[in-house]
Amino acid sequence: MYLMGVDIGTTGCKAIIFSAEGRVISSVYGEYRLLHRRPEWSELDAEEVWATVVKVVRASVQGAKVEPKAIVALSTSVLGEAFIPIDREGKPLYGSMTTFDARAEVQTARWEENFGAERMFQITGQPLARTIPIYTLQKIQWIKEYEPAVYRKAFKFLCWEDYANMKLCGNPVIDYSVASRTMMFDIRKKQWSREILDTAGLDEALLPEVAPSGKVVGEVTTEAAEVTGLAKGTLVVTGGHDQPCGALGVGLLSSGPVMDATGTVECVAVVQDELTLTDAMRRQGFSVQSYVMPERYLLFGFNPNGGVVLRWFRDNFAQVEREAAKAKGLDVYDILMEEAGKAAPGAMKLFLLPFFEGSGCPNFNRQARGVLLGLTLAQSRGEVIRAFVEGLTFEFRNILEAIGGHGIRVTELRAIGGGAKSRFWLQLKADVTGRKVVAPDVTEAAALGAAILAGVAAKTYTSMENAVKTVYREKAVYTANEATQSIYEKHYGVYKKLHPALNQLFKELENL
Amino acid sequence: MYLMGVDIGTTGCKAIIFSAEGRVISSVYGEYRLLHRRPEWSELDAEEVWATVVKVVRASVQGAKVEPKAIVALSTSVLGEAFIPIDREGKPLYGSMTTFDARAEVQTARWEENFGAERMFQITGQPLARTIPIYTLQKIQWIKEYEPAVYRKAFKFLCWEDYANMKLCGNPVIDYSVASRTMMFDIRKKQWSREILDTAGLDEALLPEVAPSGKVVGEVTTEAAEVTGLAKGTLVVTGGHDQPCGALGVGLLSSGPVMDATGTVECVAVVQDELTLTDAMRRQGFSVQSYVMPERYLLFGFNPNGGVVLRWFRDNFAQVEREAAKAKGLDVYDILMEEAGKAAPGAMKLFLLPFFEGSGCPNFNRQARGVLLGLTLAQSRGEVIRAFVEGLTFEFRNILEAIGGHGIRVTELRAIGGGAKSRFWLQLKADVTGRKVVAPDVTEAAALGAAILAGVAAKTYTSMENAVKTVYREKAVYTANEATQSIYEKHYGVYKKLHPALNQLFKELENL
Repeated sequence: MYLMGVDIGTTGCKAIIFSAEGRVISSVYGEYRLLHRRPEWSELDAEEVWATVVKVVRASVQGAKVEPKAIVALSTSVLGEAFIPIDREGKPLYGSMTTFDARAEVQTARWEENFGAERMFQITGQPLARTIPIYTLQKIQWIKEYEPAVYRKAFKFLCWEDYANMKLCGNPVIDYSVASRTMMFDIRKKQWSREILDTAGLDEALLPEVAPSGKVVGEVTTEAAEVTGLAKGTLVVTGGHDQPCGALGVGLLSSGPVMDATGTVECVAVVQDELTLTDAMRRQGFSVQSYVMPERYLLFGFNPNGGVVLRWFRDNFAQVEREAAKAKGLDVYDILMEEAGKAAPGAMKLFLLPFFEGSGCPNFNRQARGVLLGLTLAQSRGEVIRAFVEGLTFEFRNILEAIGGHGIRVTELRAIGGGAKSRFWLQLKADVTGRKVVAPDVTEAAALGAAILAGVAAKTYTSMENAVKTVYREKAVYTANEATQSIYEKHYGVYKKLHPALNQLFKELENL
Repeated sequence: MYLMGVDIGTTGCKAIIFSAEGRVISSVYGEYRLLHRRPEWSELDAEEVWATVVKVVRASVQGAKVEPKAIVALSTSVLGEAFIPIDREGKPLYGSMTTFDARAEVQTARWEENFGAERMFQITGQPLARTIPIYTLQKIQWIKEYEPAVYRKAFKFLCWEDYANMKLCGNPVIDYSVASRTMMFDIRKKQWSREILDTAGLDEALLPEVAPSGKVVGEVTTEAAEVTGLAKGTLVVTGGHDQPCGALGVGLLSSGPVMDATGTVECVAVVQDELTLTDAMRRQGFSVQSYVMPERYLLFGFNPNGGVVLRWFRDNFAQVEREAAKAKGLDVYDILMEEAGKAAPGAMKLFLLPFFEGSGCPNFNRQARGVLLGLTLAQSRGEVIRAFVEGLTFEFRNILEAIGGHGIRVTELRAIGGGAKSRFWLQLKADVTGRKVVAPDVTEAAALGAAILAGVAAKTYTSMENAVKTVYREKAVYTANEATQSIYEKHYGVYKKLHPALNQLFKELENL
């Protein structure tokens, strides 16, 4: 008996077939284009994405060398916020705007002025700010204003989960966690918010039906079976937003362990056993959304400066390492981390404030910029690279402390994403935070989380708890080195002072 | 008729033979070792240095292919502060401590407490501060305390000019400008300061005779002629400290034009027609010394962060450019400047505060550190390199403005040193300061200045003015591009705010 998790992301998708024990049987990845018709726009071509999904599912089924019928159920983990206006025949009418599409700034500002960020947070758990023009709600309004013909023709506005469900079984159902990311969902009542839809002048009929995660919504149709290679009748189960799916994939069942997903950006998430929405959370840029477990919630912090900052360094200052990696068949980041590892902890008092993309949680500031502070002739390349990784890690601790500040107990960190491939960085995270850091066995946590949801619905598992017990395993554990930790304790004290001290200068740069 | 200028520096020496028109006929350079018996010590081996001087003089005379007799006179330009204790036979008794030898910090602090920095500045024109333990006075005291045997045996403490004169003609005479750098010289009375020597408990007999620059002090002896290849009887003329010699070499006769010497460090100097010593000058770390023209003075500002900051970048982040330079036979800095030139003025709002070695004039701060502020993903390598050069240039303007703040009119900038080789940087200096920037024809300004002094004494020239008119020529002139200048005007406004805003953080780093 096998389960499939499909993970649809911003630049590519994966279809992974897992055994009931959570082992990867087959994994196939495919990419699609991110389109920028204008600099601040960011769209996916829905038909191109779906064609890629079909292709990777088919290849994964073939690669697994198992009877398609043995794959009993599948669920989908999806990027948040992105949506597709479709007509009555289910045909996409417009590009699918992603999170990074910034066109709805005016619409967002209008909500901030007229509706209020506190009120919005209490309903949706999402931080409303003109500087975060990422949500579905305001983007639909943008279409209404600037593409009225599209709006008039639209039968539904679907997110990627419900779109996938429609394509697979004909039933476009969205789960609470993906619905949470639209800024139209009442996370207490677990239904579309009448108050918000009325304010927006949006008909609820334009939105899909909502359901909890892990619920069977249909079976793979003859038509879908033909193109995907899945067996007709395979259960189609509600999945979730990629972050909560990932959190489930690393075994988060209740508050305590923290998911740290370090990819291009860094996402930090922890389960709320009971819903708590405070204004401090909102001001710090945290969001709270329905979790993929009924009645639980996920507190979610976002730092736009993750691996992308190291990639900037790699692209601009590591030509030699890039060539060496190519010649030796190594990962360039492994070489960079090795260089960083040769420098002493604290990088000779060199600090990086990693705000190349502005700062995220918990000191949201779009004007913030990257800063290297404390340069001396005594430092060399290794210290600079180490300072980059240390700066990213100090900022991670900053998010963790903010989470602690909301009364949430943090027991351990579970690291996934590209950043979890580096033992140096994982040890550094332990040394900087003083926490136990776990690298889970399965790194494709979002797909695994989706597969768990499919398995619970298919009764492969008796419960979420049972599922996690069966599939979640530690691959490696890192604990803080006491001497190093005490150095970082002092350095972090200085790090915390940097942003406040530099705030005025960031304003000066903005006004230049 | 020819003139020789000998330039004795910290890491090497040059002997250059000039025609009366100031054309280089022959130029030979030789290096010697800078010794660090302890990390904070920095010494020259006097005999090694002198052997190198003899070698380059000899090679220069041979290379000139002129009758040695036709070289009518020579003068020496020397590094400041460094000295040699000699015995009665003229034999060196100890290493020659250079400017960068920091061992006399306690002795310097004692003067600061007991004698006072203001009083010291009014006598010597030199800024007394424990953070600037560079002067001869306190280093002689260090020898008295820690090497009493050396002190007892010492017949004289000579600086490099008087040592060279002794070796060449038997008469160890020092000029006012080199004497100025000992912190024992009364620049108003133009004699060793009785007040300072009494306070130090130093016998004036231990110091050489003082004389103005450009005065014949003897003739090359038979013995010196034999080893150097110079003709016996060649006039030996007092030269000067390398900075005033350089200033004369770029034609500074009176206040107005500014010498900008950008080597490892950056030195900025301007003539004072009449002596002015204000406490503001002292607090800003300026020094005022006797000039190589009688009755004139030189105001002298020092920024420890010159080319050395670019060298740091080159050594740590320009391996590819280093290899390309080697392969193509180019200067690596030319390649770096070309990359900087491709980025737009202002480097996308990226700023460098270049204090890798602490800051110098006019905001002296040993705790200051280098800072890169304003990093974003949109920038690339070119912007970073450009920000480095722009930061050095903003700091140069900062010194210039401080000079202007002392009521000194600045008419144009005359650039020498390694930094003057880059057309990109010279244009940038014009754009950032809004001043005319001149690259003089002769870049070996200190040796040329010494040769001018030799020529005035030998009556090759009727006066300093006549000499400068004869030998000083512009090679290239740079004027500000209006559009670029207006960008830099705004950016400099932000730059000026960086140091004050970061001061508290520099303290935090120091206390880590």
